[in-house]
Amino acid sequence: MSLTKNEFRAQFRCTHETCGKTYSLGEVVYSCENEGELLSVEHDLESLKKISAKEWKDTFDSRFRSQKFPYQSGVWGKKEWVLPGISEENIVTSGEGGSHLYDASRWAKDLGLGGLYIKQCGISHTGSFKDLGMTVLVSQVKQMIADGVPIRAVACASTGDTSAALASYAAKAGIPAIIFLPANKVSTAQLIQPVSNGAKVLALDTDFDGCMAIVKEVTKEKSIYLANSMNSLRIEGQKTISIEITQQLGWEVPDWIVIPGGNLGNVSALGMGFEMMKELGLIDRLPRIILAQAKNASPLYDSFKTGFTNFQSVTAQKTLASAIQIGDPVSVKKAIRVLKKFEGIVEVATEEELSDAAARGDLYGLYNDPHTGVALAALLKSIDRGEVKKGEKVVVISTANGLKFTEFKVNYHEGKIPGTNREMKNSILPCPANLSSVLEILGKELANHK
Amino acid sequence: MSLTKNEFRAQFRCTHETCGKTYSLGEVVYSCENEGELLSVEHDLESLKKISAKEWKDTFDSRFRSQKFPYQSGVWGKKEWVLPGISEENIVTSGEGGSHLYDASRWAKDLGLGGLYIKQCGISHTGSFKDLGMTVLVSQVKQMIADGVPIRAVACASTGDTSAALASYAAKAGIPAIIFLPANKVSTAQLIQPVSNGAKVLALDTDFDGCMAIVKEVTKEKSIYLANSMNSLRIEGQKTISIEITQQLGWEVPDWIVIPGGNLGNVSALGMGFEMMKELGLIDRLPRIILAQAKNASPLYDSFKTGFTNFQSVTAQKTLASAIQIGDPVSVKKAIRVLKKFEGIVEVATEEELSDAAARGDLYGLYNDPHTGVALAALLKSIDRGEVKKGEKVVVISTANGLKFTEFKVNYHEGKIPGTNREMKNSILPCPANLSSVLEILGKELANHK
Repeated sequence: MSLTKNEFRAQFRCTHETCGKTYSLGEVVYSCENEGELLSVEHDLESLKKISAKEWKDTFDSRFRSQKFPYQSGVWGKKEWVLPGISEENIVTSGEGGSHLYDASRWAKDLGLGGLYIKQCGISHTGSFKDLGMTVLVSQVKQMIADGVPIRAVACASTGDTSAALASYAAKAGIPAIIFLPANKVSTAQLIQPVSNGAKVLALDTDFDGCMAIVKEVTKEKSIYLANSMNSLRIEGQKTISIEITQQLGWEVPDWIVIPGGNLGNVSALGMGFEMMKELGLIDRLPRIILAQAKNASPLYDSFKTGFTNFQSVTAQKTLASAIQIGDPVSVKKAIRVLKKFEGIVEVATEEELSDAAARGDLYGLYNDPHTGVALAALLKSIDRGEVKKGEKVVVISTANGLKFTEFKVNYHEGKIPGTNREMKNSILPCPANLSSVLEILGKELANHK
Repeated sequence: MSLTKNEFRAQFRCTHETCGKTYSLGEVVYSCENEGELLSVEHDLESLKKISAKEWKDTFDSRFRSQKFPYQSGVWGKKEWVLPGISEENIVTSGEGGSHLYDASRWAKDLGLGGLYIKQCGISHTGSFKDLGMTVLVSQVKQMIADGVPIRAVACASTGDTSAALASYAAKAGIPAIIFLPANKVSTAQLIQPVSNGAKVLALDTDFDGCMAIVKEVTKEKSIYLANSMNSLRIEGQKTISIEITQQLGWEVPDWIVIPGGNLGNVSALGMGFEMMKELGLIDRLPRIILAQAKNASPLYDSFKTGFTNFQSVTAQKTLASAIQIGDPVSVKKAIRVLKKFEGIVEVATEEELSDAAARGDLYGLYNDPHTGVALAALLKSIDRGEVKKGEKVVVISTANGLKFTEFKVNYHEGKIPGTNREMKNSILPCPANLSSVLEILGKELANHK
């Protein structure tokens, strides 16, 4: 069997245990008609299995960062596992995926780990891992428009990275994008990416849940396509992160993957990628997962403490890790299933812990956003507790670009985040402009350098 | 001849026409003892020529996609052309290079071009093209320390991208970094990257020239190594941008390269990369170059108007493109030589033109910083004038990440940059939270969508 797209198939399937109704990926549908349950994309694994594991690896390796369209994209280098039916002319890519796996070797040594790698998903077109899913969603919309489906626009309710990614990919494709957000809660600065990309940004006089209700209403009229995370096309792009990490480690599975979690779609995607690789023989074991939550928004941690026998949503408190300030995660069922299968644990980070961990990483050359700070703090706590052992190999998923969080960084170093480690604060040192004063200060500073 | 590092050689050579004194790359030296002229890195082209052009291309291509250290870096994939003598254990890489060549196909079509590609150098570890050069400089310093040279720290005078890159790479390597900047002229927010990376940041009670004078004084004591752009090691990393662009176009040379210019080191580096490829047979022609300056800081444009017969430095006026607000460029001689050889032209952009061009690009899915705005404006003017012709293929070099310029973007869309195109401003639309109001607004907006 050869690697031509028409031999592979994928479709939507209802995730309800007993329903299983299927839909074409070309239909405008987000949840099942029968049960209202979310859909997920199901691949025809039997046809994928006709290609050997070695051939898949060789194919993915030869495509990685290739100059040939669409393989500059880490997502589309795996297109048979993502959206096998798409025509290449409808692929909307901005070079997402293929982000650097940062080898924090000096930090690993200090921690006694066998390896510490930071997957830099924030160093991407719109500055977050959301690009991975959005290229898939917008490409499929372009395909549907080409096939005659009368879609006029794509829409989401979001105040952050999702709206930035949607607006940018839609602008690339020339498809109008609509963003809903709560009035008076978000500044132009926070929304400046979608504003710059020409999205129609509507500030509604309601809260975020009200915005979600409106976007669901508006997209019932099928000419406006829903891009929020209940649309499972995005997961198909996000799952390639597992394949990329493994590929970048020379097809070796790390001992641990640490990932920050709010709505929990990303950990489901991570799990799907690894399970698909195992099913198709590319790997023979699964990594363990540390799901990291901000303590102020940690319903899954509470559930983990009960052995996942019970889950209760909470009212999320304010956290610096704003993208995971979620008390009632959409993808909790899938996430628990993944964590059980991957011998996962859940760990929490307080505001001080996430801030200090982000700053600690910066001293090894990183520039971490607060969500990565949550993941790093969870890792440090897991090492301290002996859960993560000396010599083990760990990958931390960094979900967003630190350049989006200047205020967080400034507040940390200006001592405005209560309870953080004073020793790690760095400040600009005033100095007279003459050589002897400069050398005197440098003498002291260099003697103190750690 | 095989591709093992010891068969290739590079050294510093004085750039003075009649001097030509050479120095080892392992010496702490920035300018010639005889003439005080800057040095440049000279490669032994005869040994490089013993490898065929095809073999170089195949090698570069196979490394570009590689997961193997140090080839995750676009710079170190070309190590024989960059720093052939370095030991791999001393390479300090954060995955610089390999940035996406963004295919702005929709914009190219609207402009009648045969192709318009944006080289996304700002989507990189510290958010600017400076990473390309800094990996080389910091790696060479690590090599020298390993070889017993008593270097205690690296230092530069910079208020922007250079200090961010230096601090990050030094932190990765565990080498102290020192940054000098003028007191009271720069906020913590502007310097937050090096502050976060633990650099010793000294605010001197002088202006920027005073800081440069101090850094030169301090680095005369050879235990502190100078990282400013008179250190020609950085150019060696930056020149790989030419090779990468050509490689990403399938080893095809574009008709035009557009690059913003202030100190003009980047256009020299660009030229060196193309000349080296031509000399070694990888390409058979050179692209033309458009060097784009902000009108408020355009001494090279004035010189171009005299056919480069005359060059006079100017006092640079304030420009939004702050990194190229330079009236007395360090690398002007090299830049003029390159522009003559590449049939280059110089074009200027006013504050309005650079702002509008950046915003125009955003409507095609980009998120441009003001320097990229200068380059895009220069391109649009060159097309209007008929200099760049229909059907030609153009690459624009984007030097920094738009996420560093939130204020610029907000000011543009809030109408605070005088004289800009009102039609391109986008704003957040207030709307009552009910379906009929939303549909009414969307009806109008979608009808107006361009």
